[in-house]
Amino acid sequence: MEHQLYLQSRAWQEGLALMMENLAGRCLPENEVVDVRQALHRITGTIIRAKRNSPHFAASAMDGYALRAKETHGLCEREPRWFELGVQAIRVDTGDPMPEGMDAVVMLEEVLELGERGILLQTPIVPWHNVRPVGEDIVEGEVVLSVNHRIRPQDQGALLAAGVLKIEVRRRPRVGILPTGDEIRPPEANLEPGDIADSNSTVLASLVEEWGGTAAIWPITPDRFDQLDEAILQMAASQDIIVIIAGSSQGRDDYTTQMLAKHGRLYLHGVAIKPGKPVALGEIQGKPALGIPGYPVSAFLTAHLFLEPWVKLLQGLSQEAPDTLKAVISKKVFSSLGSEEFVRVKAGKVGDRWVAAPISRGAGVTMSLVRADGILRVPRLQEGFHEGETVPIELWRPVSELEETLVCIGSHDLTLDVISSHMKARGGSGGIASAHVGSLAGILALRSREAHFAGIHLLDPQTGEYNHAYLQRFLPGRDIALMNLVYRTQVLIVAKGNPLKIRSLKDLARPGIRFINRQGGSGTRVLLDYLLQQEGLDPEQISGYEREEFTHLGVAVAVASGAADVGLGIQSAAEALGLDFLRIGEERYDLAIPREYLEEPRLQVMISVIQSRAFQEEVLALGGYDVRETGVFYT
Amino acid sequence: MEHQLYLQSRAWQEGLALMMENLAGRCLPENEVVDVRQALHRITGTIIRAKRNSPHFAASAMDGYALRAKETHGLCEREPRWFELGVQAIRVDTGDPMPEGMDAVVMLEEVLELGERGILLQTPIVPWHNVRPVGEDIVEGEVVLSVNHRIRPQDQGALLAAGVLKIEVRRRPRVGILPTGDEIRPPEANLEPGDIADSNSTVLASLVEEWGGTAAIWPITPDRFDQLDEAILQMAASQDIIVIIAGSSQGRDDYTTQMLAKHGRLYLHGVAIKPGKPVALGEIQGKPALGIPGYPVSAFLTAHLFLEPWVKLLQGLSQEAPDTLKAVISKKVFSSLGSEEFVRVKAGKVGDRWVAAPISRGAGVTMSLVRADGILRVPRLQEGFHEGETVPIELWRPVSELEETLVCIGSHDLTLDVISSHMKARGGSGGIASAHVGSLAGILALRSREAHFAGIHLLDPQTGEYNHAYLQRFLPGRDIALMNLVYRTQVLIVAKGNPLKIRSLKDLARPGIRFINRQGGSGTRVLLDYLLQQEGLDPEQISGYEREEFTHLGVAVAVASGAADVGLGIQSAAEALGLDFLRIGEERYDLAIPREYLEEPRLQVMISVIQSRAFQEEVLALGGYDVRETGVFYT
Repeated sequence: MEHQLYLQSRAWQEGLALMMENLAGRCLPENEVVDVRQALHRITGTIIRAKRNSPHFAASAMDGYALRAKETHGLCEREPRWFELGVQAIRVDTGDPMPEGMDAVVMLEEVLELGERGILLQTPIVPWHNVRPVGEDIVEGEVVLSVNHRIRPQDQGALLAAGVLKIEVRRRPRVGILPTGDEIRPPEANLEPGDIADSNSTVLASLVEEWGGTAAIWPITPDRFDQLDEAILQMAASQDIIVIIAGSSQGRDDYTTQMLAKHGRLYLHGVAIKPGKPVALGEIQGKPALGIPGYPVSAFLTAHLFLEPWVKLLQGLSQEAPDTLKAVISKKVFSSLGSEEFVRVKAGKVGDRWVAAPISRGAGVTMSLVRADGILRVPRLQEGFHEGETVPIELWRPVSELEETLVCIGSHDLTLDVISSHMKARGGSGGIASAHVGSLAGILALRSREAHFAGIHLLDPQTGEYNHAYLQRFLPGRDIALMNLVYRTQVLIVAKGNPLKIRSLKDLARPGIRFINRQGGSGTRVLLDYLLQQEGLDPEQISGYEREEFTHLGVAVAVASGAADVGLGIQSAAEALGLDFLRIGEERYDLAIPREYLEEPRLQVMISVIQSRAFQEEVLALGGYDVRETGVFYT
Repeated sequence: MEHQLYLQSRAWQEGLALMMENLAGRCLPENEVVDVRQALHRITGTIIRAKRNSPHFAASAMDGYALRAKETHGLCEREPRWFELGVQAIRVDTGDPMPEGMDAVVMLEEVLELGERGILLQTPIVPWHNVRPVGEDIVEGEVVLSVNHRIRPQDQGALLAAGVLKIEVRRRPRVGILPTGDEIRPPEANLEPGDIADSNSTVLASLVEEWGGTAAIWPITPDRFDQLDEAILQMAASQDIIVIIAGSSQGRDDYTTQMLAKHGRLYLHGVAIKPGKPVALGEIQGKPALGIPGYPVSAFLTAHLFLEPWVKLLQGLSQEAPDTLKAVISKKVFSSLGSEEFVRVKAGKVGDRWVAAPISRGAGVTMSLVRADGILRVPRLQEGFHEGETVPIELWRPVSELEETLVCIGSHDLTLDVISSHMKARGGSGGIASAHVGSLAGILALRSREAHFAGIHLLDPQTGEYNHAYLQRFLPGRDIALMNLVYRTQVLIVAKGNPLKIRSLKDLARPGIRFINRQGGSGTRVLLDYLLQQEGLDPEQISGYEREEFTHLGVAVAVASGAADVGLGIQSAAEALGLDFLRIGEERYDLAIPREYLEEPRLQVMISVIQSRAFQEEVLALGGYDVRETGVFYT
């Protein structure tokens, strides 16, 4: 194991560089010849030169008459001359070859008079006027495309014009993908507890395709040395790059490192990045071999770091730097000690500055990859980033799309997704990017100009009124429009059949009842505290009062999974999960929109969606909503 | 023809909008169902909701021991407790389902002591500690993807995790492409004078594919009404969008407009854009039908303006705004009166500002599309842009790639392409973007900081020395490094076999000899004037002295095509076209590089290429070059 580089102190970049240095020269695929018409997005394997001139004949550039320029010498207004048709002047259209001996074209509208037998001219023409010379576009032997160039539609056009029909391109690198693990099942299997559906193979195969390679997914292989051994040798025989996806259990990736050590070489095992630690870099029979961790987020991120460079290199390409953007980070990001961390963020443009909001950090949360607009790298051995700090975001979506996205920070409501979907259905690329942090944090986000609007449902215990008082208290002097989105029914969410026979709020204090709460600052928490006070209940009496979830669905999931017996939330969340519920009351959920953003076209689209009948009907169908004031502005 | 909208006064956007208003509601394709694993880059046709929770079982998030949290209540350092293995504590690995009745996991490293029968703990554990609850990632019924969303690899992963195997996506729009014209030949045909190889069909088909559609190319159809009629009706029967590529000759596009009027409706004919005027917008049997002009540059640009919106619309997508960049324009751009013009530009970053250089404006120059980095729109009824003005460039290449590109403005030499190719072969995405404007204009570009370096070969008639004197005169006080690229042989380029028996410079003054010159400010022009003076020849005596080409290849092409009998240029240009030549002398071709750019990594790569043996050998093989001082710095 002398070759193995442990990464306690080295950065992953060095491990990859060492692997490339050793392997890159030995594993490049040969070129292949393809028809230019099938060459879109392939990479040129050589310089490509023109095989003929374009145009390949001198052509008229206009509709008119071809003639000999020297015969027009000395013409002027007082000395016009007749040119005999078919002899001294020949009618040509744009693109026609120049008749033998003729060297200029006079445009139809420049001809003084037109007869059956000839034309009258009164101005001299210089040679090659209105004539496209041979090779004006492309000269035989000229370089049309350089090597290592990704072929675009216009490149195909130039090649065909230059008489080039077949070209040498890089063969697409073949990437073999081996899903391993006793618990891994095909996506179509019925899953038992403990089983994991294999989604990683598909994700990696699609990434490989986007990077220009072709992927072959091997059958799922259990954690048995002999079977893994056989699969890996099969892959080495036919593929250019070998990827082994290991499960996430303790010691699982040891199989991969043993394989690498046995059949080739192990360059690196374990890298100081998060998510993604248990990566293995090695070779098998002279081919790059990668062990990729099984957690979906880790697999996705480490594939970008370690697989993409190989797929690119084998095509003669370097990895492109991602587009980046400077954005203000909306909340503090702690560094994870000793690891470089890749934090997924949502991004949007509020006013004239970009805002990035970090989202879930779990390595198993695949939805964080779906929701993310980009990545913030937090370097190891650095403190992290403060709220309000300007940080570089590597983008996963085009800037133009992000510019059309509305940023909503505040309380969670299921109808926000419905609005977003309706907005996209109207044809724009932008919808709503929402961060669920609770009503009060939403108002604070408006204060620091990090959101276009906030969803809020904050009851003022003094007046029994919603929202107005909080806006006045926390955003004094700001002109905020307040529009109703929905009235919604707040319920106690309980398990199907209500086995613990919970009948009212008072039951929360019963011994043995496990409550699940919402976070402080959320409208639901404010409502709960208000109701408890009215009922004369003490939070101390409620088991689980200190357990906090951040969304209605989070509360419903806790109940559905048996992690809690009861929680307070909106009816639609209970219905989404097929749970039972007890009506507690109705609350007003509004959108608070600083008036300065109100005229923005995409906000206008949103308002028009909210006020549409189609949207309101879809909301009613969710259950637990009332739309009697939906789309109405209070201020 | 009451429906027809003539465009004398209307912008093309209005014509397209009118067409969309009338047609969009009637021609949307139905959705189709695909396997998620084959759905990369497809567009969702509905909202897609999760079919199961992910995880679908409560799972251990760590390697450790599962236990009942309540049994750890009250533990402390002085009151540790034994948990019996298999009864009170069960060994679990990351991802294992939680054993029945257990609700927390203690990590291996937190266990105080480990025996065969039990473990010793001394700290209390809260419920659900180190447990991934059911639905932590995705909750059944939750929206995973919105409608009209282009599916990425991570989206496939989330769908599979959510138990979604089949989804409704937009059917790819089918685009029928009909190449027409008596002169159009398949690319593989042997071309006679007047014939045009059909490259447009391939270019349009590839664009359609990039936009998410599928293209079917119809056989080339001659200009006969009955045959066109038959082809168009065939297309209307099976395709969603009909594209007719007309030739460029007068009246050709009338066939298309007649077809539209006969079988459907013509919305617009002729648009005020350049290149691209003869566009026709219409419908055939309720399907969008477009007449696209035959000149390759016009076809490419009008396809972006009129075809892309339809291919996108039929997938529920809007056309994305292209990435734009503010750049300083390096030379004046005149407006073309009454038309919106699309000027192709090269772009690069010099120092801290972006520079854009306009390239050829001809509608037939396909290489302008290959070379361009983007487009500058010159609005109609506007003056154009002044040199040095800041203008918006719509980019065709990623910014990251352009940032790695070196901008060379100055004299043309064939070896610049060779350098660029070697640079790309070394793995970087950037090469050299060169604008050929002559040596003196190159020096002026350095003065206005529009180029990283200039290629120059300017003889000082006083001293017989090259380049130094010009740098001192035009760039006083700037610290410019001067490096030799090559010595090159200047020759008189004559037709194969030298039929006019040209033997020396003196023959240029012979009656009947037609010369082709280079533009003023080019090194070759300076050399010619110097040589003429030495020989005592008067430019007035030379027929064609006033005819100017801008490159060596341009001169060679003029001779090869018979447009001229003789020109002065470099030997390699004559050899590239198989022409004969007479050696006149040798000249020094240098690169002038402001020292402030010299440390930039990509310039270092270029210098390393120039100094490499592989590059110099390739240069020698071109003929007419000497590399005895190649890569040597004079200052």
